[in-house]
Amino acid sequence: MAKAAQTAIKPTRSEDYPEWYQQVIKAADLAENSPVRGCMVIKPWGYSLWENMQRALDDMFKATGHSNAYFPLLIPMSYLEKEAEHVEGFAKECAVVTHHRLEPDPNGGLRPAGKLEEPLIIRPTSETIIGATYAKWVQSYRDLPILINQWANVMRWEMRTRMFLRTAEFLWQEGHTVHATSQEAIEETERMVNVYADFAENWMAMPVIIGSKTPAERFPGAIETLSIEAMMQDRKALQAGTSHFLGQNFSKAQEIVFQAENGEREFAWTTSWGVSTRLVGALIMTHSDDDGFVLPPRLAPTQIVILPIYRDQSQRAEVIEYVESLRKELSEQTYAGSSVRIEIDDRDMRGGEKKWYHVKRGVPIRVEVGPKDIEKNAVFVGRRDQAKSFGISRSEFVTSIDKILTEMQQSLFDRALELREKNTVEITNEKDFRDFFTPKNEDQPEVHGGFANCFFSSEEQLDSLLKELKVTIRCIPRDADEQTGTCFLTGEKTTQKAIFAKAY
Amino acid sequence: MAKAAQTAIKPTRSEDYPEWYQQVIKAADLAENSPVRGCMVIKPWGYSLWENMQRALDDMFKATGHSNAYFPLLIPMSYLEKEAEHVEGFAKECAVVTHHRLEPDPNGGLRPAGKLEEPLIIRPTSETIIGATYAKWVQSYRDLPILINQWANVMRWEMRTRMFLRTAEFLWQEGHTVHATSQEAIEETERMVNVYADFAENWMAMPVIIGSKTPAERFPGAIETLSIEAMMQDRKALQAGTSHFLGQNFSKAQEIVFQAENGEREFAWTTSWGVSTRLVGALIMTHSDDDGFVLPPRLAPTQIVILPIYRDQSQRAEVIEYVESLRKELSEQTYAGSSVRIEIDDRDMRGGEKKWYHVKRGVPIRVEVGPKDIEKNAVFVGRRDQAKSFGISRSEFVTSIDKILTEMQQSLFDRALELREKNTVEITNEKDFRDFFTPKNEDQPEVHGGFANCFFSSEEQLDSLLKELKVTIRCIPRDADEQTGTCFLTGEKTTQKAIFAKAY
Ligand SMILES: [Zn+2]
Ligand SMILES: [Zn+2]
Repeated sequence: MAKAAQTAIKPTRSEDYPEWYQQVIKAADLAENSPVRGCMVIKPWGYSLWENMQRALDDMFKATGHSNAYFPLLIPMSYLEKEAEHVEGFAKECAVVTHHRLEPDPNGGLRPAGKLEEPLIIRPTSETIIGATYAKWVQSYRDLPILINQWANVMRWEMRTRMFLRTAEFLWQEGHTVHATSQEAIEETERMVNVYADFAENWMAMPVIIGSKTPAERFPGAIETLSIEAMMQDRKALQAGTSHFLGQNFSKAQEIVFQAENGEREFAWTTSWGVSTRLVGALIMTHSDDDGFVLPPRLAPTQIVILPIYRDQSQRAEVIEYVESLRKELSEQTYAGSSVRIEIDDRDMRGGEKKWYHVKRGVPIRVEVGPKDIEKNAVFVGRRDQAKSFGISRSEFVTSIDKILTEMQQSLFDRALELREKNTVEITNEKDFRDFFTPKNEDQPEVHGGFANCFFSSEEQLDSLLKELKVTIRCIPRDADEQTGTCFLTGEKTTQKAIFAKAY
Repeated sequence: MAKAAQTAIKPTRSEDYPEWYQQVIKAADLAENSPVRGCMVIKPWGYSLWENMQRALDDMFKATGHSNAYFPLLIPMSYLEKEAEHVEGFAKECAVVTHHRLEPDPNGGLRPAGKLEEPLIIRPTSETIIGATYAKWVQSYRDLPILINQWANVMRWEMRTRMFLRTAEFLWQEGHTVHATSQEAIEETERMVNVYADFAENWMAMPVIIGSKTPAERFPGAIETLSIEAMMQDRKALQAGTSHFLGQNFSKAQEIVFQAENGEREFAWTTSWGVSTRLVGALIMTHSDDDGFVLPPRLAPTQIVILPIYRDQSQRAEVIEYVESLRKELSEQTYAGSSVRIEIDDRDMRGGEKKWYHVKRGVPIRVEVGPKDIEKNAVFVGRRDQAKSFGISRSEFVTSIDKILTEMQQSLFDRALELREKNTVEITNEKDFRDFFTPKNEDQPEVHGGFANCFFSSEEQLDSLLKELKVTIRCIPRDADEQTGTCFLTGEKTTQKAIFAKAY
């Protein structure tokens, strides 16, 4: 029997994808479960990635005219009573603050005291509290539009959690805008889903499909929800960002009313849009391999790590001097409009161990430099997206660094797109649909399925089949041509066509 | 009787300082009270100032070797039971989460359901939850030091709140570090209070005194608390940042234990340090005047606002073209290492109203440009720190912008330092102490007092006098020479000397 190749992550993706995901997070030192149920600790390497995501997104939000602001963490319970559909969607599982003090209990411990007159809940999303504030700010059409974003923590009491993908507390941004007309609000909703798609594709190297959600999958209270959907390596879909056109639903519940130019009092039109630390989970599952995390260069906290190699202190002096000058030269290069981010790792550690440390963390480029390389004025380069390392002259490496990183970023995108295209099918009948979404081994399901493009006539009719197979309608792609076909379940004529997939 | 000068803010500082503070916040559009008790909404102009503060501080933290990470919002109640002194200081007034669900109540409203087995509290500060995590991370001296910072929201159930200065929820950063030796931890504590002083003086233009807190004023559980103290314009002190040497108190409570190089198991040495949105309150009270907010140029979201002036559309085209080219030219200038931040305000609004809008918001430089200025290739400049405006040639203005902003930043600092020096006294007896801290009009206290440098022999002996006068010991200044004097209260010989003041 041929010996299996050694991998840094065990199990591999094909052996046990969910467990592989957890092991990549651990090996890359991204996060860990906290002692508080369902909440995670985001460790420095994971958090610096999130900081890079935040910075890029924040620049894009500001370039599209938005400002940041901050609204309260706690929401009075009565606010949630106002918008029935929204409560149904969010209020069920949330953290409820009922007391404002701790006092000693008779057993030497503590107990809650100071009961609040009205319970407060930790925001699961901020439409209600922000809407109540906007109602005070908006008087006239001259006060519109309001274009505000908030970076914040939110909390949803999820029963089953998975790091980055679904946690009780998570970090996100939520944009909340108010407009004088339906048309403007719709344009805003589309503008922001486009910003998300731009970020996903050009920063995360993650191809996405923009589409609209069917009624059952919409944000509670929204007229329309647009989303970006990506295919993970296990062929499941991940909703990576949403942008909601809320119509006048929230403005009516919260009385966001303005005097129009014609003097009439009108309810405003609102939107909301958000992405979260879930994007880190998406990034992990899009690019990582059986050796660990793979970072797209544009988001990598460290783009190049230099590993000095030497036998003794006299060699060390020479090598360190050389790598310091190399670092300086490299940091003067730019990639994607910023200085290249370089780290020298001179920790006292075995060479192999040190190399794998950075492989598992996903650093795009490793550069080894020892006395022999210095003699030849060359460096030994390992690319995280390729198995083989190669020698290259120092000057060629320095001048081509922008090109190499650009090529890596593109190759990650291409590889992810290829995976998606290879696993996207057109399905026209129930049998094929069942086959596509049923693993051969139910006990330990193998990677299977993908995106199925199907005509369908009614969401309700599909309900039981989708529940049975654990499949959802991901979206009606925006760019699809108007076509007529037959429903894969009923054979009825229809023009509705959507992407079906299992999803995170 | 001479007519009082018109001011944009009513009341003035001398008429009613606390109310003036609220009115400046309102006029500058910085924040407002939210519908949630004790919590504020930070509006875009106020938040962009906080973003600039964050960016500068974050760069300083990273330059001193720290990384950011994120820890849970909620802390199990049992964690607070471990460190007795800390609970005493923080657990008393905090938001307690007792349920994780809302369910319909019989009256058509909602009510808490799903009672938690163990109550959770919203972090008032994170020593306990972060310490519990560090206990898992630290095994050996090789794992040390841990140098981590967190940007987060925290909550303390304050009874009397005031925007930015004391709110139930506030934004802050909290550094939490772990070291192998006492010496290293003490150095870290000092390093970070120096970073805060550097930021306060060189970014906020706010002179501060670095000192150590007396035992009664220390952070609950700390061995030593260092702080920076600033004098506000009403001569009260404001503690603007603190850095705590926690010794082994927290590591013992949370079992942060490591194997030392000699093989022995030892408790680690920890520190914590933080500044908050309180700094915005400090900034307002340090520089603002009776016309509103005054921003130090280095932190101003907009450093220059250009106000185009024209009578009709044909003039408008010419003026707008001119100011756009002026903006471009100015944005190529740098000030304090960054591009100059410029805004053109072409809103349809009366000229006077528009000018005062920016005065009240504290924009450092206003530039008016109309057809006559364009003819002369000149601009009309108003500096926020001076009453008079002046004409200047365009080219001279552009080339001197760095010089002007630098001068403004310095002049704000100098003015604040002068105020502090003028209102700092040496006091050697009780009568002078009482006089200094007693307003002439008790019903509506005038601005009075300041910083009193006094020898004292025992904090306990002073307790009732300080309570009576509402005075506190601010700090024992770090740079004070070792001196001997007599206690202002008892006449006893002593070497202890501190700054006494009323404080926020
Ligand atoms: Zn709703
Ligand atoms: Zn304590």
